[in-house]
Amino acid sequence: MGLKHGTMTASQRDPLGVGLLGVGVVGTVVAQALLDGRTQETVPGSHPLVLKQAAIRDLDKDRSVPSDLLTSDVSSVVNNPEVDIVVELMGGEEPATASIAAALKSGKHVVTANKEAIAKNGDELIALAEANGVRLLYEAAVGGGIPIIGPLSSDLLANRIQSLRAIINGTTNYILTRMTAQGEAFDDILADAQALGYAEADPSADVDGWDAMYKIAILARLAYGASVPLDSVHREGIRPVTAADISNAATLGYTIKLIAAARLEDGGLLVRVHPALIPNDVPMAKVDGVLNVCEIEGDLVGPLWLQGRGAGPDATASAVLGDIIRVARAPGSITPPRKLISPPALLEMSDYQCQYYLRLVVKDQPGVLAKVAGILADRNISIDSVLQMDSDPERGTADIVLTTHPAREREVQQAVEQISAVSSVEKFASLLRIEPYGDSSG
Amino acid sequence: MGLKHGTMTASQRDPLGVGLLGVGVVGTVVAQALLDGRTQETVPGSHPLVLKQAAIRDLDKDRSVPSDLLTSDVSSVVNNPEVDIVVELMGGEEPATASIAAALKSGKHVVTANKEAIAKNGDELIALAEANGVRLLYEAAVGGGIPIIGPLSSDLLANRIQSLRAIINGTTNYILTRMTAQGEAFDDILADAQALGYAEADPSADVDGWDAMYKIAILARLAYGASVPLDSVHREGIRPVTAADISNAATLGYTIKLIAAARLEDGGLLVRVHPALIPNDVPMAKVDGVLNVCEIEGDLVGPLWLQGRGAGPDATASAVLGDIIRVARAPGSITPPRKLISPPALLEMSDYQCQYYLRLVVKDQPGVLAKVAGILADRNISIDSVLQMDSDPERGTADIVLTTHPAREREVQQAVEQISAVSSVEKFASLLRIEPYGDSSG
Repeated sequence: MGLKHGTMTASQRDPLGVGLLGVGVVGTVVAQALLDGRTQETVPGSHPLVLKQAAIRDLDKDRSVPSDLLTSDVSSVVNNPEVDIVVELMGGEEPATASIAAALKSGKHVVTANKEAIAKNGDELIALAEANGVRLLYEAAVGGGIPIIGPLSSDLLANRIQSLRAIINGTTNYILTRMTAQGEAFDDILADAQALGYAEADPSADVDGWDAMYKIAILARLAYGASVPLDSVHREGIRPVTAADISNAATLGYTIKLIAAARLEDGGLLVRVHPALIPNDVPMAKVDGVLNVCEIEGDLVGPLWLQGRGAGPDATASAVLGDIIRVARAPGSITPPRKLISPPALLEMSDYQCQYYLRLVVKDQPGVLAKVAGILADRNISIDSVLQMDSDPERGTADIVLTTHPAREREVQQAVEQISAVSSVEKFASLLRIEPYGDSSG
Repeated sequence: MGLKHGTMTASQRDPLGVGLLGVGVVGTVVAQALLDGRTQETVPGSHPLVLKQAAIRDLDKDRSVPSDLLTSDVSSVVNNPEVDIVVELMGGEEPATASIAAALKSGKHVVTANKEAIAKNGDELIALAEANGVRLLYEAAVGGGIPIIGPLSSDLLANRIQSLRAIINGTTNYILTRMTAQGEAFDDILADAQALGYAEADPSADVDGWDAMYKIAILARLAYGASVPLDSVHREGIRPVTAADISNAATLGYTIKLIAAARLEDGGLLVRVHPALIPNDVPMAKVDGVLNVCEIEGDLVGPLWLQGRGAGPDATASAVLGDIIRVARAPGSITPPRKLISPPALLEMSDYQCQYYLRLVVKDQPGVLAKVAGILADRNISIDSVLQMDSDPERGTADIVLTTHPAREREVQQAVEQISAVSSVEKFASLLRIEPYGDSSG
């Protein structure tokens, strides 16, 4: 840019020491920003920040951090009396959670990008931060650099949040976007995504929906002031989604996305992660590639749409550094998250109601559809459309694709069980949900 | 919703008194929230908030505020020793600015939705807040309830902002959206918008771009750490946009929007408000009706897209109340905005470079286009496309619509002057800019 950035006047406040746990791709950007003074440049009146120590796994690997600041011992950073802010970038539940807890207990502020640790142990860690009068900040845990935690923690506090709906896993969105554009199978695109660095060697955290589950649990806790145990979150990944489902969805006017949602329904809170058919005419159907979006509906603010890069070293570092600067400006500003006397009860997925997409492989013989329709009718599930796909004369089978009018998950699952047992049904291939959109959401 | 909201434990902190200046549609929602305890409900550990007084113009009008709290004297609220937070919702430059300044000087925090006062006198008011150790918050001044000021003031501080581009005036976006959908003239749609309450009786603040100018000046100050005097902002409104321009734009693949932008170009900062042709395939072309959006591009975070309702009593109150809660949680957290030692120089519009859309009404006779093309060629402005519209045989005129390749504003304006002087040119009807979109912006 060529512009000179810097504070107007030298800060008169005491410096704060920063200790890094983990110097991977994000940690490198964070360390560099601390070392070159970027975080001080433009924020008058805040405490100067000094990188004091960084813990890494392998001391022999080349790092952007001066070697005299490096250690392989996490606890020496956590216990370093010169460190006031511990920045945890190791990921995974342990030893991250224990390190965060130890840092908070010894009166250090903590900034972390760790969705798993915060989703699993956030209630305890938040209480620990409050009890010790320090800050625990984790904007980078959800949506990369998109301000989502910040708005839910602060800007939107006057609202009663009615709904959160998000695409918050870039890997699965990338895979689904490419499957949609190219009509290729999940496995082929996954292999490609792995080669390009968009998917991990072990892709389970992303493709099986764990990552999205951690993130939506964190957002739901903030938005609804409720504890959200992970076993209360319905989780399905994208492995079962086939090229056929994507192409059928397109025929029906939908795009398949991995949706993470937390919504008040019938007075309770349902938190869910699953692939869903999104109507092509709503904006969420067009959020492609590694982009993330979080749609927030509050009773005062109405619908909000926050979109950006949900991952990547720079975007994640933007959020980590933003949190570090928050501490440097106001270390004493302890602002515990929203808590309700009577938080909403957590609902089970079996209570959910929506339209469904069902795909069956059946023996190509008369009467199959009648049988299937009869089972659905017995449970008061009415059919919205039927798409009879090309039959496969060699195998003597045909694909039947159905969509239903709104029905209860419990009933649909029971119907699926019965349909699977019908002798002329070779295979119950897919059950997918159609994401409901009211007038206001388009 | 039927859920009981409330704090887990009674707050132990001293109450803060709130004084309202103005109880219009926004003030009514704010007052109601304070009176019914909504702001306390969910925020543990913050100072309780108590509405102490409200100044209104006409004491005889029915209000939602108990009459013993009402006064017609603004200064009695500003000087009320029981008021710790002054919430200014009068609008307009004066007496709002004087009241804000007086409140800050007497050590009161100020929350305001006043874009005009903050755009015109923000530098002084921000300095006054800092000098008096109090908070001055104005999230509601831009984009209704969309968190924009918050992210620029805090979450994104580690970023060097490269570009802000926004639709931040709901009235003009509503008018342009309807002109586009219905092919009707500006005046007809404006009258309709006035009848529906989407436009003021005196529409100038909106349709002449003043409102958008105030807002983008506020955002530019925050994003670039620079003073942005309003006379450095290029401002054009939507009155000159005709149904013919909108239909020509559509033919060429564009939608016309009132754009407010602040972008670093050639090492300087250009801040501008004007109608622009937006390529139909970028998302901003689809932001319709009273929606607002702010696109922020930071060097770390990449492109961010923040969209929501930019106006309306509830959405604006969401932001006002969010700021009041910010004070109630951390009144001592004084976080002055970003400031640079050497802020970017402010550029003039004449330095701007983009593609242009020109519409001329010419005498329907041979040689006119050659003459116009010659004038453009003399200034090295090359033509991208020519759209010769139906001629009007009765009047003997024809419309010529041109788009250019990227050219410098200065050159284009000089060419326009020359073209207007050509005898066979009846009228130089429109000059509109085509908003540039790179690969990353779509």
